[in-house]
Amino acid sequence: MAQNLATKILEHHLVEGELVPGREIAIRIDHTLLQDATGTMAMLEFIAMGLPRVKVGLAAQYIDHNLLQTDYKNADDHAFLTSAAMKYGVHLSKPGNGVSHQVHLERFGVPGITLLGADSHSPTAAGISVLAIGAGGLDVALAMAGHPFYLPCPKVMGVKLVGRLPDWVSGKDVILEMLRRHTVKGGVGKVIEYYGPGVATLSATDRATIGNMGAELGATSSIFPSDERTREFLVSQGRGDCWQPLAADEGATYDEYDEIDLSALEPLIACPSSPDNVVTVREVEGVKVDQVLVGSSVNSSFRDLMTVCRILEGQRIAPQVSFHINPGSRQVLENVADQGGVVTLLMAGASIHQSGCLGCIGMGQAPGTDQVSLRTFPRNFPGRSGTKGDKVYLCSPETAAAAGIYGVITDPRKLGTIKAYPAVQNPSTYLLDDSGIIFPLEETASVEIKTGPNIVPFPEFEALPDTLQAEVVIKLEDNVSTDHIMPAGNKVLPLRSNIPAIAEHVFEQVDPEFPARAKAAGNGVVVGGENYGQGSSREHAALAPRYLGIRAKLAKSFARIHKANLVNFGILPLTFKNPADYDLFNQGDRVSFSDLRRLVESGAEEVPVQVGDKQVMMQLNISERQRRELLAGGTLNYVRQSNHK
Amino acid sequence: MAQNLATKILEHHLVEGELVPGREIAIRIDHTLLQDATGTMAMLEFIAMGLPRVKVGLAAQYIDHNLLQTDYKNADDHAFLTSAAMKYGVHLSKPGNGVSHQVHLERFGVPGITLLGADSHSPTAAGISVLAIGAGGLDVALAMAGHPFYLPCPKVMGVKLVGRLPDWVSGKDVILEMLRRHTVKGGVGKVIEYYGPGVATLSATDRATIGNMGAELGATSSIFPSDERTREFLVSQGRGDCWQPLAADEGATYDEYDEIDLSALEPLIACPSSPDNVVTVREVEGVKVDQVLVGSSVNSSFRDLMTVCRILEGQRIAPQVSFHINPGSRQVLENVADQGGVVTLLMAGASIHQSGCLGCIGMGQAPGTDQVSLRTFPRNFPGRSGTKGDKVYLCSPETAAAAGIYGVITDPRKLGTIKAYPAVQNPSTYLLDDSGIIFPLEETASVEIKTGPNIVPFPEFEALPDTLQAEVVIKLEDNVSTDHIMPAGNKVLPLRSNIPAIAEHVFEQVDPEFPARAKAAGNGVVVGGENYGQGSSREHAALAPRYLGIRAKLAKSFARIHKANLVNFGILPLTFKNPADYDLFNQGDRVSFSDLRRLVESGAEEVPVQVGDKQVMMQLNISERQRRELLAGGTLNYVRQSNHK
Repeated sequence: MAQNLATKILEHHLVEGELVPGREIAIRIDHTLLQDATGTMAMLEFIAMGLPRVKVGLAAQYIDHNLLQTDYKNADDHAFLTSAAMKYGVHLSKPGNGVSHQVHLERFGVPGITLLGADSHSPTAAGISVLAIGAGGLDVALAMAGHPFYLPCPKVMGVKLVGRLPDWVSGKDVILEMLRRHTVKGGVGKVIEYYGPGVATLSATDRATIGNMGAELGATSSIFPSDERTREFLVSQGRGDCWQPLAADEGATYDEYDEIDLSALEPLIACPSSPDNVVTVREVEGVKVDQVLVGSSVNSSFRDLMTVCRILEGQRIAPQVSFHINPGSRQVLENVADQGGVVTLLMAGASIHQSGCLGCIGMGQAPGTDQVSLRTFPRNFPGRSGTKGDKVYLCSPETAAAAGIYGVITDPRKLGTIKAYPAVQNPSTYLLDDSGIIFPLEETASVEIKTGPNIVPFPEFEALPDTLQAEVVIKLEDNVSTDHIMPAGNKVLPLRSNIPAIAEHVFEQVDPEFPARAKAAGNGVVVGGENYGQGSSREHAALAPRYLGIRAKLAKSFARIHKANLVNFGILPLTFKNPADYDLFNQGDRVSFSDLRRLVESGAEEVPVQVGDKQVMMQLNISERQRRELLAGGTLNYVRQSNHK
Repeated sequence: MAQNLATKILEHHLVEGELVPGREIAIRIDHTLLQDATGTMAMLEFIAMGLPRVKVGLAAQYIDHNLLQTDYKNADDHAFLTSAAMKYGVHLSKPGNGVSHQVHLERFGVPGITLLGADSHSPTAAGISVLAIGAGGLDVALAMAGHPFYLPCPKVMGVKLVGRLPDWVSGKDVILEMLRRHTVKGGVGKVIEYYGPGVATLSATDRATIGNMGAELGATSSIFPSDERTREFLVSQGRGDCWQPLAADEGATYDEYDEIDLSALEPLIACPSSPDNVVTVREVEGVKVDQVLVGSSVNSSFRDLMTVCRILEGQRIAPQVSFHINPGSRQVLENVADQGGVVTLLMAGASIHQSGCLGCIGMGQAPGTDQVSLRTFPRNFPGRSGTKGDKVYLCSPETAAAAGIYGVITDPRKLGTIKAYPAVQNPSTYLLDDSGIIFPLEETASVEIKTGPNIVPFPEFEALPDTLQAEVVIKLEDNVSTDHIMPAGNKVLPLRSNIPAIAEHVFEQVDPEFPARAKAAGNGVVVGGENYGQGSSREHAALAPRYLGIRAKLAKSFARIHKANLVNFGILPLTFKNPADYDLFNQGDRVSFSDLRRLVESGAEEVPVQVGDKQVMMQLNISERQRRELLAGGTLNYVRQSNHK
C-alpha cells in the first residue's frame, strides 16, 4: 500500500504498537538532543540510570540557552554538562557554538532518522528529512539509554506546496500562513508532511524554518522529502555521503489535506502576542519600531543573515532602532564574515552577538516599556521577551531588515524601489569548523564529573511500599496547572538541577507553607479536582513534590502528560471512582493504603483508601509498563533494575 | 620656569586657586563623559539644573554598561539617555557602539584638553594627551552645565621611560610593573606623567592602556606627551587636524620620580584579587585556566585584538577553555573583521561579543565555582566578576592568547617556538564609521524626554530652614561606610535613577526599619562616630537619606568625599566640638536648631543644637561656596538660583 513519508519513517522505527492514530506506539530513536536549560536535569537522570555510556546512535548536548553568566550557576552548569558529555560518549557543543537546531542540521542530521530532543523546536531538522520530536527531559534521557520513545500515534496532515515564492517572501511567510490558517492548536496530534512541486523551490534552511515553527502549530513533528535540495545542503556541509532520497510513495494518502500556492503568498507578520495572530505586513505598516532582532532559534542560517546583509548594504539603520543579529551557529557567522557580511552589518549599525538563543528565550535583549520589537523568532507569547506587556511581532528576515531601515513596520517589497531582491543562496561549500564541538572520547574512565554547589544528584526514591500512612497535605480545586505546582521564571529556573532547592518553591503561589508541611508529614497525598496538572509538560511538577514526600495524588481527573510524569517519579495517580468522595477529604486528614504492591502488581484497577472511619474506592488506570515502574518507585528505578538483570 | 606637561595643562585650565599640591583648585572642563550606569542619575541632575543645553565644549553619553537587558529597565534607561542627549546637545553613543574610553579616544579626544568622566577609567584618554579625570555624577553634571571642577591640586609624578619593549611584552606589562612597584595606593593625589625616550616606542593605544589603569594606582590622572605617535593615531582616525605637539618643558621637574627600562620588562600578571598583586607570568606558569576574556575597558583596541588573532591563527583554543572577545568599539571590530580577523578568531574557537563593558563590570561572563579566569581587564577585586570567591588574573592580550592555546597560564614568549611575534600595528587609516553615534541636533524643542516607570525626576529639596525640629532616627558607631548607608549589588543598582525606590534600601544591612522610621519622623538627623561615610564615593549615600528627610548628620568626623556629597544634597555635616557629647544622643531623641540660616550665612563655625534640656555645640567646617549651597538646599538648587539671576 502506498505510504506517505511520515508513516514510512515511523514504520521503519516501530518497536511496539500499531500505526493507528491515537494508539500508543513505541519508536526507536536514532539521535538525541539536549540543550542546557532542560539538559542538566536530563543528564542527572541519565547518570542515575547507572549506564557507562549512551546507547543511542548519536547523542548531542548543546549549550545555547543560559549564556549570560550573571553568577557562577551558568558556568557551573556548562562545566557539568561538558564533563558528563565526555564521560558518557555524548557530543558537546560549547557555549557560543550555536543554537542546537541549527548546529544539528549542519553537522549531524541524516535524512530518514528519528531525533528526540528536549526542546520543542527540535523539528527544525525536518529541513533535511529528519523526523524530530520534542519531549521532556526524562524521555530523552531514556532514549539516550537505548529505550524506545512512547507516544500516541500521530495523524499525518499532507500539505501540498505548488508554485514558487515571489521576491521578498521567504520560508517564514509559509509557516506564518500555516499559523494563520490552522492556529496554535491546528497541529496537535499530527505530523505535518509537505509535498508537491513547490517543495523543490525551497532550500534546506527554508524548510528548516517551516519545520521549526511546526511546534507553534502544536504539531508532533513536521517532515519534508529528501531530494536534490537536501543533497545539495549535505554536500555543502561535507556530508553528502549520508544523503538518501526519501519521499511519499506515489498515490500515498494523508489523514488530512491542505495546499499552499507559494506564488500567492505575500509578507506576513504575527502580531502581539501569539504566533497565530497573523496578518499581512501591509495591514500593520507604519507602526514605529524600537527594536529588531534577527536570528536565534529560527531564521538564523547563512541565507537569512546574508539576506539582511545584502538589504542593509549601503544603508543605515534608523538612528533610534536597536538592531541585533543572533547568528544560529559559529559556522553561520564564519561564512557571513568570510563573505564580508560582518563589516556590512556593523557599518549599517547592527550589533552582532555570540551564537545562541539569547533574547528568543528571554535571556537578555528585553525591550523597554511600551517598545515595539520585531523578531524573526518563533514565539511571541506575552512576557516571553522578559518585559511584561511586551509588543513582540514575528516576521521574516526581509521584513525585519526593512523595519531597520525605515524605522517603522514596512512591507519589504518596498525595498524593491531601492534595490533588486538579493535572492541569497546558501554556499555550495561552507567554510567548515568544528572547533566548538567536543567529540566523544573512546576512553572515559578517567573523566570526572564536575558538579558545582547548585548541581545536586538525582534523588533516590524507595520502591512502592505495601502499606502507606500519609497526610492530606493540600486540597485543591479543578484545573490546577503545572505552573501552579512548580512555577518557572528567573528565580526558580536556575534551580532546575537542584531538586532540594527547587522543591522549596512547590505551590509557592498557592500555599507557600506547602513544602514545610509536606516534609513534616513524612508521607503526603495531594487531593485535587478535575483536569489536575494541565499545562506545561515540566517534569519538575511531579519530581519536586515526590522529593517532598508526596506518594499519591487523588483527583477527579488528570491531564495526560502530568499523569505520565507522576508514574515516572513513583507517585500513584488515583482518580475517585465516585467523584463525590472528593468531599470526604480535608487538609490534615490521615489516610492509609493496604496491600498496595499486590494490587498494583495484579493489575487491579481499584485501590481502596481509608480516611477516618470511611473506606473510599479509587481507580488506577495505567498500562502494564507503568505498573512495573510504579512498583519500582519510578521509571529510573525500574530502568536501573532492568539493567542489572 | 620650566613646567611639566600636567602642570601646563592644569595652569591653562585654572579658574580658581593656586597650583600648590593639596590646595583646592577649580579647573575648566572641555569634554564630559557619562556612561549609562552613572549617567542616568547624572543626566537627571543636569536636567534638574533647568538649562536648555549643555555648556561644555563636547558632552558625550555612552551606553556601554547595562547591555544585558534582562527586563525593561536597561532598555528604558537607554531610551531615556538617548532622548535626553538629543534634547540637551549631547553626543550619544548607542549600545553596542563601544566602551566609552575607546570610543572617546577614537572619535573625540583632543591633545591638551581636560575631560571629566563619570567613570574611573576615563584617563584612558591619556593615550592622546588628554588630561582626563574620573568623578561623581553630579560633578560631571555641573561640568556639563559649564561649571568648573573643584579638586585638590595633585602632585605630579614623572615616570621616565627608556628602551623599547621586547617581543611578547606590551603596554599592559608596563602598567602592571607600575602597580607592582607602587601598589593600588601609590598614585593617590597625583598625576602620573610619562616622559623620556621610551615614550616614542609606544603607540597611542598602548599609552591608553597605561592611562586607563592609572586608576588602579589611585591616581587622579595620567598623561603622555603629544608627539608623532599621537599625530599618527589622529590621522588614522581622520582627525589629524586636531593634533598639536605637547610635552614637558626642557628641564622641567616633578614632585616625584620613577624610571622604567622597557627593554628589561617581561610578561607580568596580577594574581587574585587585587590589581597590584603582580608577579611575572613565569612564576604562575602551569595554573589550569577555565576562561579567558580579552577586551572591554582596556586592551580592546585593534592592536590588542589583532595580536590575539595573529597568535591564534592556525591554532585551536584548548577544548575546555571558554575564550571570549569583547571589542572596545564597533570601529575596532569592523577593522578586525575587514582584515579577516573575525573568521580567524571564530575558527580558533573564540566567541565574539557586541562591543561593551560586559564581564569587566560583572555584567555576565561570570566564571564558575573555583574556575580560573584570565582577563585583560583593569580590575580583579574579589567578587567583581559576579562570582563569590573568584580567581581572576589580569594580563596582556599576548598572555591571554597563550593561555587559550595551552589551557594553562603560559609565558607568551613560549609562543616564539611556534611563530614569530606578530608585532601588530594599528592601521594607518582606520575604516571609519559613526553609525553608532547620534550627533547633537540644532533644533531640540520638539524632542521629548522618554522616561520609563523606573526613571523618576530628581527630587525637589527645600532651602535650609531657619529653625529645625528633628528626630534622631539612628545612632551609629565609628567607620560607617557608604556601603552600609546605600548598598550596591544587583538588587539595588537598577534603581539608581529612581530615588524614591532606592531610598527604601538605605541602611538595609544595618537597620531595615530605617526608611520607614525616617519618613514617619518627617525631619531626621543621623548620629555617627569617627570616619563617618568612608569608602566608595557614591552620591546616593547622601541623596537617598536626604530624600527620606535627613537634614543633618552629627558625627565625630567625616570621610572627605561623603562630607562633600552631604553638602551637595543639602545635609548639614556637623562634628562634635566635644566628642564626648556623642553620648548625649540616643535614637528617638528630639533635637532642635535655631537661627540656622544666619549662622550658616555669617560663616559661623559653631552651631548649637538642643537635645532634651541640654545644648550641645557642633562645628561646621565648610567653604564659603559650600555655605551658599547649603543655604539653597543643595548644589543643584544653588546652581539653578544662580542661573536665574
